[in-house]
Amino acid sequence: MSESRLKLDVTRMMADAIGKGYGVSSGEIEQIWPRVMNLLQGLEARRKSGELPFYTLHENEDMVSRIEEYAEKVRGRFKNLVLIGIGGSALGPIALADALLPLNWNHLSDEERKAPRFFVPDNPDPEYLGAVMEVCPPEDTLYNIVTKSGGTAETMAAYLAVMTPLKEALPEEWREHLVFTTDPSKGNLRKIARNEGITAFSIPSGVGGRFSVMTSVGLLPAALLGINIRDLLAGAAEQSEKVFNREFETNPSAAYAALQYLAHTQRGARMHVMMPYANSLYRVADWFRQLWAESLGKRMNLQGEVVNTGPTPIAALGATDQHSQVQLYVEGPHDKTFTFVVPRNFRRKVHCGKHHSDIESVDYLAGLDVGVLLRAEAEATQRALTAAHRPNMTFVLEEIAPDTIGELLYLLEAATLVAGGLYEVNPLDQPGVEAGKVATYALLGRSGYEDHRAEIEKERQRPSKIVQ
Amino acid sequence: MSESRLKLDVTRMMADAIGKGYGVSSGEIEQIWPRVMNLLQGLEARRKSGELPFYTLHENEDMVSRIEEYAEKVRGRFKNLVLIGIGGSALGPIALADALLPLNWNHLSDEERKAPRFFVPDNPDPEYLGAVMEVCPPEDTLYNIVTKSGGTAETMAAYLAVMTPLKEALPEEWREHLVFTTDPSKGNLRKIARNEGITAFSIPSGVGGRFSVMTSVGLLPAALLGINIRDLLAGAAEQSEKVFNREFETNPSAAYAALQYLAHTQRGARMHVMMPYANSLYRVADWFRQLWAESLGKRMNLQGEVVNTGPTPIAALGATDQHSQVQLYVEGPHDKTFTFVVPRNFRRKVHCGKHHSDIESVDYLAGLDVGVLLRAEAEATQRALTAAHRPNMTFVLEEIAPDTIGELLYLLEAATLVAGGLYEVNPLDQPGVEAGKVATYALLGRSGYEDHRAEIEKERQRPSKIVQ
Repeated sequence: MSESRLKLDVTRMMADAIGKGYGVSSGEIEQIWPRVMNLLQGLEARRKSGELPFYTLHENEDMVSRIEEYAEKVRGRFKNLVLIGIGGSALGPIALADALLPLNWNHLSDEERKAPRFFVPDNPDPEYLGAVMEVCPPEDTLYNIVTKSGGTAETMAAYLAVMTPLKEALPEEWREHLVFTTDPSKGNLRKIARNEGITAFSIPSGVGGRFSVMTSVGLLPAALLGINIRDLLAGAAEQSEKVFNREFETNPSAAYAALQYLAHTQRGARMHVMMPYANSLYRVADWFRQLWAESLGKRMNLQGEVVNTGPTPIAALGATDQHSQVQLYVEGPHDKTFTFVVPRNFRRKVHCGKHHSDIESVDYLAGLDVGVLLRAEAEATQRALTAAHRPNMTFVLEEIAPDTIGELLYLLEAATLVAGGLYEVNPLDQPGVEAGKVATYALLGRSGYEDHRAEIEKERQRPSKIVQ
Repeated sequence: MSESRLKLDVTRMMADAIGKGYGVSSGEIEQIWPRVMNLLQGLEARRKSGELPFYTLHENEDMVSRIEEYAEKVRGRFKNLVLIGIGGSALGPIALADALLPLNWNHLSDEERKAPRFFVPDNPDPEYLGAVMEVCPPEDTLYNIVTKSGGTAETMAAYLAVMTPLKEALPEEWREHLVFTTDPSKGNLRKIARNEGITAFSIPSGVGGRFSVMTSVGLLPAALLGINIRDLLAGAAEQSEKVFNREFETNPSAAYAALQYLAHTQRGARMHVMMPYANSLYRVADWFRQLWAESLGKRMNLQGEVVNTGPTPIAALGATDQHSQVQLYVEGPHDKTFTFVVPRNFRRKVHCGKHHSDIESVDYLAGLDVGVLLRAEAEATQRALTAAHRPNMTFVLEEIAPDTIGELLYLLEAATLVAGGLYEVNPLDQPGVEAGKVATYALLGRSGYEDHRAEIEKERQRPSKIVQ
């Protein structure tokens, strides 16, 4: 077997390393593994029947070719790519861009970038959306509108907001400044695309928003930004070979799910912190936060019983959060696991200069590669948590690159399905967001929601308790 | 009493609104209030004795004048302000800049801004630090180096990294491109300032990093960026009048601390989510995340007993996280409180255009003020959580402005001291970060840490458990 470019070091999740009663025991893994194998058999059968298309998105050559053709066609034409979407329609694209483009991307010159700047106003906040619109004149901008249903209120509102200046500035050509990513056949956006002849890409049916990063949702903006999407998919393909492996040691996604589940249910670690040691990976942790929370946080289990279950994922950033959260992580309650993501190599080197050599407590840093400091801090935090009996594991990436990121995202998606099985919930639905949507429609006075509106008005009459 | 521009609506924290066994009861507040009053008496006495200087930072006219003079002196001279600091030295400045400058600040032209761009590389990540250095040529840049001790490894490393290109580019004038914020008399940075004649501002002794936003740590960069720091301090002053009030209804900081503590200890709400509905306030939530975690997350209580206590603060963003976390928040375990921060008015208006009027499920948005949608979503989420028996409260800001932000930050700092008393921990120390620092020094080969290094080397010999 060739050396993997992505490894999961679980040493410090184990009782051997962090102490009995704190870590997961080998016996517990042995005990749960048959259940995991059983779940994997079920998932494999569902994959084969085509019920879980996310497992094989990397095989969709048609999709990739069409994206590449479009990216080639518009190359050099736009200074800005503005992606309008929210949740799964935004988090994947942001994670890819942050991980795989320089962190100063939007501040580089057109010549340095050779691809558009990238803005994702993923909130109907007028101050944020307005700020993006102000710096992206329609003449120079391609708008990628992303909503699977074609009806997401936040996304459609932002779309209607950018449409006015777009049509005003470009009464003839506005259609060419739009590209939609939506359902293959249904919904408003698909209808508009057909009526107006606007280019539209599809999100395959059966792939939910939080599992859509390897569809045109993630791949189209990535390709437009010059990211090698074939390498990304090759990484996913590599991991796809492992997700049904039968051994703990060769199945990182199942091992990850099992360890998180055991630490939660057997050791009370109900919060799952993901803490990359690289600014470029912080938004990968944020993407994971949606995946894990929305998939596993459920009121009912598969038997229809009220369980109110699910771990709470938390995104943190090393070393920055050592100066914010690590005090709590090391000394607070024993209610968390930690997943570090650490690259072995950074894509840029910065060295500390030799200055103030007369001061010993400064001079020990002179000449140091800053990346060495960051990696030392990751190891130091792992050791501090271990000494404090806190379960922690580490994804080690050979480097941050399209293939390792593709592999990591695929791994975490696969782990989520396994975890869904262990928690006995449906990891593919999100019934809990419905009530908020209905209340929003009612508050906006949308027709058909009059009864809800009346109910809200009645509730509004109740006295408030205000402190001031 | 004049109408407050900042109010705390606690209606939905109460059992009356969200259900018995889920919310806090009036009886529980009555019961704990004498304890809160007792704590406040102690804090007030310590304030009077000068032991808790953060309470009166807004009265420091000398500090403000000196900051304003310096800001006036360098006005128009620099295109970039690069703040090098981490933790409390960075989170306050970032919170102020994000809240009080347009969100596209760094993309505006020099004429539009009339003040420098702002970068805070608060991590020794070579990819991040290098990216900032690349877009900020030393000739155009003022570097504000911020570390109270003058010895923070991450900060000193970044400082040594920028020094080389700075001195190369400006062999004569480099000192004028530096401004330090550090201890009034001790530490490396103070020593360097004296030796080299570099301008240095002080962090008053007795004010820890996470309570330092109203010192030169936060005020100097704010003033350099053109933020009205007198209004900010006036807001803090306004809240300072309330923090020892004896009634629940007129003491927002004590009420906030008491409700969070009761929801945690009596209802199991061990996670405290802060969720502003405004992109500009997300970093205020992140600033609070340090304040709450590092102050309350403690191994030992004041009696020296091992308690491993402390709530876990979580930053979320509305409406964005409705599409990421709200599924879990509404349906998952009953282990969280929610603090919304909602402005009554936004500083910019954006309207949805009237397009595709033939599609009813799009047309209901036509003409809508996007800010109205965002506020409707905040209310909808509050209602959904309330219906699901989840304790939630809301800071209502008349608008996002220096005074309301100053008031909010002061309120949360004051609440933290009260909460420290309720949890019976010292909210001003952070002993748990020491182990990681020592391990980092050992790994970097700093002299004096040879024994620790030997220990680490021994541990490194132990076999790892790798999944790949």
